[in-house]
Amino acid sequence: MELFDPLFRSSPCAEHFGAAATLQGMLDFEAALARAQADAGVIPREAATPIEQACRSDYFDPALIAGEAARAGNLAIPLIKHLTARVRRDDPEAARYVHWGATSQDAIDSGMMLQLKAAFALVDGQLGVLQQVLAEQAERHRDTVMVGRTWLQHALPVTFGLKLAGSLDAVLRLRAQLQALAPEVLCLQFGGAAGTLASLGAQGPDVARELARRLDLALPDLPWHGQRDRIVRAGAFLGTLAGTLGKLARDLSLLAQTDVGEVAEAAGAGRGGSSTMPHKRNPVGCAVILAAAARAPQLVAVLMAAMPQEHERGLGGWHAEWETLPELAMLAAGALDTAIELVRGLEVHAARMRENLDATHGLIMAEAVSMALAESMGRLQAHALVEQKCRQALEQGRGLQDVLAEDERVLAALGTQKLAELMAPQNYLGAAGVFVDRVLEHARAKPVS
Amino acid sequence: MELFDPLFRSSPCAEHFGAAATLQGMLDFEAALARAQADAGVIPREAATPIEQACRSDYFDPALIAGEAARAGNLAIPLIKHLTARVRRDDPEAARYVHWGATSQDAIDSGMMLQLKAAFALVDGQLGVLQQVLAEQAERHRDTVMVGRTWLQHALPVTFGLKLAGSLDAVLRLRAQLQALAPEVLCLQFGGAAGTLASLGAQGPDVARELARRLDLALPDLPWHGQRDRIVRAGAFLGTLAGTLGKLARDLSLLAQTDVGEVAEAAGAGRGGSSTMPHKRNPVGCAVILAAAARAPQLVAVLMAAMPQEHERGLGGWHAEWETLPELAMLAAGALDTAIELVRGLEVHAARMRENLDATHGLIMAEAVSMALAESMGRLQAHALVEQKCRQALEQGRGLQDVLAEDERVLAALGTQKLAELMAPQNYLGAAGVFVDRVLEHARAKPVS
Amino acid sequence: MELFDPLFRSSPCAEHFGAAATLQGMLDFEAALARAQADAGVIPREAATPIEQACRSDYFDPALIAGEAARAGNLAIPLIKHLTARVRRDDPEAARYVHWGATSQDAIDSGMMLQLKAAFALVDGQLGVLQQVLAEQAERHRDTVMVGRTWLQHALPVTFGLKLAGSLDAVLRLRAQLQALAPEVLCLQFGGAAGTLASLGAQGPDVARELARRLDLALPDLPWHGQRDRIVRAGAFLGTLAGTLGKLARDLSLLAQTDVGEVAEAAGAGRGGSSTMPHKRNPVGCAVILAAAARAPQLVAVLMAAMPQEHERGLGGWHAEWETLPELAMLAAGALDTAIELVRGLEVHAARMRENLDATHGLIMAEAVSMALAESMGRLQAHALVEQKCRQALEQGRGLQDVLAEDERVLAALGTQKLAELMAPQNYLGAAGVFVDRVLEHARAKPVS
Amino acid sequence: MELFDPLFRSSPCAEHFGAAATLQGMLDFEAALARAQADAGVIPREAATPIEQACRSDYFDPALIAGEAARAGNLAIPLIKHLTARVRRDDPEAARYVHWGATSQDAIDSGMMLQLKAAFALVDGQLGVLQQVLAEQAERHRDTVMVGRTWLQHALPVTFGLKLAGSLDAVLRLRAQLQALAPEVLCLQFGGAAGTLASLGAQGPDVARELARRLDLALPDLPWHGQRDRIVRAGAFLGTLAGTLGKLARDLSLLAQTDVGEVAEAAGAGRGGSSTMPHKRNPVGCAVILAAAARAPQLVAVLMAAMPQEHERGLGGWHAEWETLPELAMLAAGALDTAIELVRGLEVHAARMRENLDATHGLIMAEAVSMALAESMGRLQAHALVEQKCRQALEQGRGLQDVLAEDERVLAALGTQKLAELMAPQNYLGAAGVFVDRVLEHARAKPVS
Repeated sequence: MELFDPLFRSSPCAEHFGAAATLQGMLDFEAALARAQADAGVIPREAATPIEQACRSDYFDPALIAGEAARAGNLAIPLIKHLTARVRRDDPEAARYVHWGATSQDAIDSGMMLQLKAAFALVDGQLGVLQQVLAEQAERHRDTVMVGRTWLQHALPVTFGLKLAGSLDAVLRLRAQLQALAPEVLCLQFGGAAGTLASLGAQGPDVARELARRLDLALPDLPWHGQRDRIVRAGAFLGTLAGTLGKLARDLSLLAQTDVGEVAEAAGAGRGGSSTMPHKRNPVGCAVILAAAARAPQLVAVLMAAMPQEHERGLGGWHAEWETLPELAMLAAGALDTAIELVRGLEVHAARMRENLDATHGLIMAEAVSMALAESMGRLQAHALVEQKCRQALEQGRGLQDVLAEDERVLAALGTQKLAELMAPQNYLGAAGVFVDRVLEHARAKPVS
Repeated sequence: MELFDPLFRSSPCAEHFGAAATLQGMLDFEAALARAQADAGVIPREAATPIEQACRSDYFDPALIAGEAARAGNLAIPLIKHLTARVRRDDPEAARYVHWGATSQDAIDSGMMLQLKAAFALVDGQLGVLQQVLAEQAERHRDTVMVGRTWLQHALPVTFGLKLAGSLDAVLRLRAQLQALAPEVLCLQFGGAAGTLASLGAQGPDVARELARRLDLALPDLPWHGQRDRIVRAGAFLGTLAGTLGKLARDLSLLAQTDVGEVAEAAGAGRGGSSTMPHKRNPVGCAVILAAAARAPQLVAVLMAAMPQEHERGLGGWHAEWETLPELAMLAAGALDTAIELVRGLEVHAARMRENLDATHGLIMAEAVSMALAESMGRLQAHALVEQKCRQALEQGRGLQDVLAEDERVLAALGTQKLAELMAPQNYLGAAGVFVDRVLEHARAKPVS
Repeated sequence: MELFDPLFRSSPCAEHFGAAATLQGMLDFEAALARAQADAGVIPREAATPIEQACRSDYFDPALIAGEAARAGNLAIPLIKHLTARVRRDDPEAARYVHWGATSQDAIDSGMMLQLKAAFALVDGQLGVLQQVLAEQAERHRDTVMVGRTWLQHALPVTFGLKLAGSLDAVLRLRAQLQALAPEVLCLQFGGAAGTLASLGAQGPDVARELARRLDLALPDLPWHGQRDRIVRAGAFLGTLAGTLGKLARDLSLLAQTDVGEVAEAAGAGRGGSSTMPHKRNPVGCAVILAAAARAPQLVAVLMAAMPQEHERGLGGWHAEWETLPELAMLAAGALDTAIELVRGLEVHAARMRENLDATHGLIMAEAVSMALAESMGRLQAHALVEQKCRQALEQGRGLQDVLAEDERVLAALGTQKLAELMAPQNYLGAAGVFVDRVLEHARAKPVS
Repeated sequence: MELFDPLFRSSPCAEHFGAAATLQGMLDFEAALARAQADAGVIPREAATPIEQACRSDYFDPALIAGEAARAGNLAIPLIKHLTARVRRDDPEAARYVHWGATSQDAIDSGMMLQLKAAFALVDGQLGVLQQVLAEQAERHRDTVMVGRTWLQHALPVTFGLKLAGSLDAVLRLRAQLQALAPEVLCLQFGGAAGTLASLGAQGPDVARELARRLDLALPDLPWHGQRDRIVRAGAFLGTLAGTLGKLARDLSLLAQTDVGEVAEAAGAGRGGSSTMPHKRNPVGCAVILAAAARAPQLVAVLMAAMPQEHERGLGGWHAEWETLPELAMLAAGALDTAIELVRGLEVHAARMRENLDATHGLIMAEAVSMALAESMGRLQAHALVEQKCRQALEQGRGLQDVLAEDERVLAALGTQKLAELMAPQNYLGAAGVFVDRVLEHARAKPVS
């Protein structure tokens, strides 16, 4: 699969879920466990250091462990076996206390939480960068008038700033969500074989508290081997992130259509060129983001559908999570990196935006006129009248303003100059500027690191 | 589809998403809009009352509106047409101001939010009830010893209270999540045709604020016609609820297996009887919940995959939400009602639980002995010794305690009495009681209405 | 949910899955079972007629049965209870033999198969109609030149006929698939309580054969209560149908963009009008189809994820199918009906298609020139040269032909006239016509009823 | 992700989708294209050999190509660039004709088809092996009586052979499906930039035919760049395979519960051992298969939801397929390998199966008695009588046979000996043997290579 990594995945995020990081996550758990237990007097004080020192992923052969995992059913069993062997080499006594009182899932889940924590820090940082580039572009294009499109039809004038502010607003929500969920989701798993910490006697809760502190993970009220809502919550966040970026990419790819031409992805050596059509510039960034947005919801569904795990520790459902959550994180982070690059380098063709507003010869301003007429003749009648004028304009290939100007009812109600003002897109933007300013203000209040 | 409603859906929740409620949601929007605009002077003061008075769902024929929606593409267009006609009958002047400045999606999305708000209130109440019945059962069975099972194998003793506390803990998280998301998700949609409120001139933001206040919905920074993360967040919550209940149902259905016999759903006239096997009592409640847990993740995936909606208002993606979000809410609420009934009426066979602990002739206590031995001989050696004794016990069909008592190393390390104590399940529960107490305490701190 | 039925569902298909049809499906099974068993001497000959006569859905109250199903766990139990009561009223002796030797799932699954059979017949007929209207349009537009778009960029000229032929080709595959799967999927379920037909002694297989014959369903080698691949195969077909229609709707909705204007959905009273923008005509048909294409894959995933059903008859997974398969069929059939209407009434703006070909001032013909030049200068060099000329044309706002005509290498290689020919879109259609003709020929060979 | 490969993926299948094979698939296309075009006189005859000779994946650096793909948007663009450079080194003239007239998607899709073909051959072979091991076990256990379970409750006696025959029957259907779909799905992609083969003039169809012949792929009527139903069909097959195996694994894992003990996965060094509980043997094979069955449906949904790809070649949807289809194939093939090992090495505890039949003290035989009594007293009355006796037996902790033998109505209807016969599980297997034999016969008729 590596062939597609540079295209689809963020490389720092991919590193956080690579083989070394996966092993290190479990080893960090084992090291902290030994230290916490030594401090609590559960294991001999002198056992901790040899164990801690052996907990380095580069001491272990990922391929060997992967191979043995196929028989053992998980990665922790062979890893702990090799870890114990390594500790024993130098300190046979200390080796007795490796993984003391813990179960495989304690190491695997806690390790995953450590990896997820690193990934969330990365995503939070990149969300901050995206916030910044979106805010810059939204501010720059606060008053760049363009066609607003609904149902893929020209509807009313909007601004490009307003469109970007919509995405920026969603990014701010994502950051707030991440801030809220991280301390609740990122928590220790430590329960021993059946979630009772039985082998630690009365000392279980104390060791757990110290272990959580050392790993800088939240301490849950009880082990959650079979309760997977935290995993799902992390996944749903990542899926929503992908979907929010997908919305942005959908719009930009539609605006980049040759037929629309209002934006283009930044050009660059080897970027989006076609192998046979020299004139084309493919919106590669949009494609990458849309692919992530197409895949992420299904990965979330895997996690959610896997929630009914059997009894104290399940079978199958848990296993389905192992590759799914990392994949989700890597695809979402990859799409995020791509989105930053996309927004930052975006070519915005304001002139073409202005041109496209005229493409329907004024039909896009129909509502403006309709609403103005409605004041005197009521919404339905005004709607009917303007609808008829639009049809006439279309059939005769004329501008709507001309057609309207011929109608005495219209002239009586509005007059020529008022009609002309009504037909100018920049005069019919309503609260667009206010909306953009509001979001920008909130963005400014939310500092980026 | 109605045939399956009583089985799968909560009837009050189904009512909140029924035809009348759907129309009323949009009508409430239209009524509040008229009043807010009258107050702001956007429409004549005397237009508001006639419009408000006409906004009652029983004035309109759902079948007629449904039929016309097939051509119009949404429900709001025909509803507003009929609403306008009804207002016009009594007050032609007021009729001009129906739906002033709004777009179909404003009415549809805001109406959906009002429906969702009612559904969330219902779900919150029922989560409180489930919290209560789970807390009662967890407290009652705080010390009911049973087999803990991992990978579907007997592992170590746990308590039934601990198992229930796991679900209770998850329910507390769900309630906290709902409390956090409701005020952020349940918000007004009001943007007019392209999200600029252009037809209201400078008064758009003021009208929006007043409209939100009247509908008791949050006021977003800007319209969100094309940004659907709030919908997804609502959906993900409901899906997580279904999954959490699914976990509970999975466990109870496994415990209710004839081969296990530790729990049974409450008996009752016509409840779970088999059409041909008089002795069977089917776990109908579990089946209903598991079916919801199987369907909900896919409905969430529909919402999430529909996020990349085109431009100012999309096509297809938005339409995919209309039935999906209500379905999700009804299935989750139905599963919730069923779960309450299930937990409340649960028959718990504590004697059978105790019996099953002995099914493996003491093998389940192997870890207890292994950990005790490990103190003197190290984890790996102790593990190996006990593993060998387990095999021997299995092969010879004898109790583990007898086999162990024959081994001098064991006797030297533990002595007969210590061995007997180690072999008693109730002595090897670790922090189970502490865990249950913690969750119960948090549950008590979270009052139910 | 009924509010959305006219918009999203085919009404004849919805009828095949309505309450009456669902009850009738099970009743048809019960009637045929009684007759088959009477013929085989399993039950008294005179018991069959009274049972058969009572097997009419209008004798039973759907609401009552639905309500009782909530306790019984399925619809068959209360239905059979009421059926038995009705038979008993007239013939107490015959009442003893209702549902003899069968289990609820026999009636439910076989009934579902009868419903599915009716739905498949409907879908097959409508696929034939879609084939016909697509073939007509593909033939009509065999030579209608338009822009071919890849990555949403103008690429090369194609024909509208070729685009439609692609959908037609897919429809032919769907019809072939349906023809192949129907006789394999549509089969009897009859196994009794645990799939052994134990209560029929040695006569089970004979009764099963006769029962299948009477219901005109295939006879499987053994009951399939827990093996659900046939259900999934039916579902995957329906999902693929929705996806194929979604592809068509995606393209047509993009071509219907105001910015492209190459097609439009048929106008009509109340069709796709906007509530506030008189000039808009929304592609309602495309939205309906795209919504179905967004929902169907998830419904398929529900069915597929529900395959691991427990033992002889499962719990939860089977229940998840009950509403999902009908929903899938109704949405797919609804999208199919909408697609027929859409293609049949499509407005095709050939002049605008021709116009759009010129939008890039010849850039779309770059490949034609590039390939011609490659013959003398090699693909890469030609590509590079033309790419440079395209850039130049873009920068200077000139036609590509003019820019090329200035270059001596180009003139040397091609000459002015050859260059002009190369720049004419209708001269660069390759095998488009051949491809269309092939598909049309195959369509003609596949008669529609 | 490689850490999980040995656990979840079939290694030969993983090789078919590895980096080298992916590059080689595209290179095979390029080589065959050059030869086919040379034969047809489209390119110079002497250009073919140098191109063919350069088409070896080990000539190219996967990491380099992967990195460049991130900018180009797909793998084919950089691969063709490097291929051309390599050909040019030795034969600058030939280098002009690399990839002549083709588009990236031609190479990518055709290459994927070649990879899929290899994967299908592998899967077909392994399905044959699974067929064989299932048939052997089904034959061996044709008469091994065990409890049939429905809704997870003891229902009626069945045989272990019947259970396996259900899976075998499904495997036969899978093989038939694969045989039917392979020649239809595995087809050439060759259409050039917009699916018209424009750059080949009139020779397009001939070259395509020859190219298909050389690659041993079917020749479609027209290019299918935007029509993805074949991809979905391949995916749905793989998903159904995973689901069918999931059903088998679900049952075996439930039978392997400590509480049931009827089967166990083969023991073996390091196989399924627990890190802390020496007595446990985890059903690792079942977990692996169930994880695949949980993930596969969502991957199918990705493919199906990606069908509405834009115009002649889409953006985002196509990209979503690239990793999804290989992942699906590898997970399904991995589950298949695991299933073979699982069934082959399965420990079947027939004595425990027999024991469990008695666990309900005869209740499981209630239907047998009920049906026999129904002959004289009617189904409902017999059902009611036996239901009452079952309750009595349960309450008094006695055997059902004893309780029944006390009732005069029962004795009058059946007599003591008939009652005893009715209570013997092996006498109440109905057509189980016939069903097993039928499936075995069909399996024998379907040779395995």
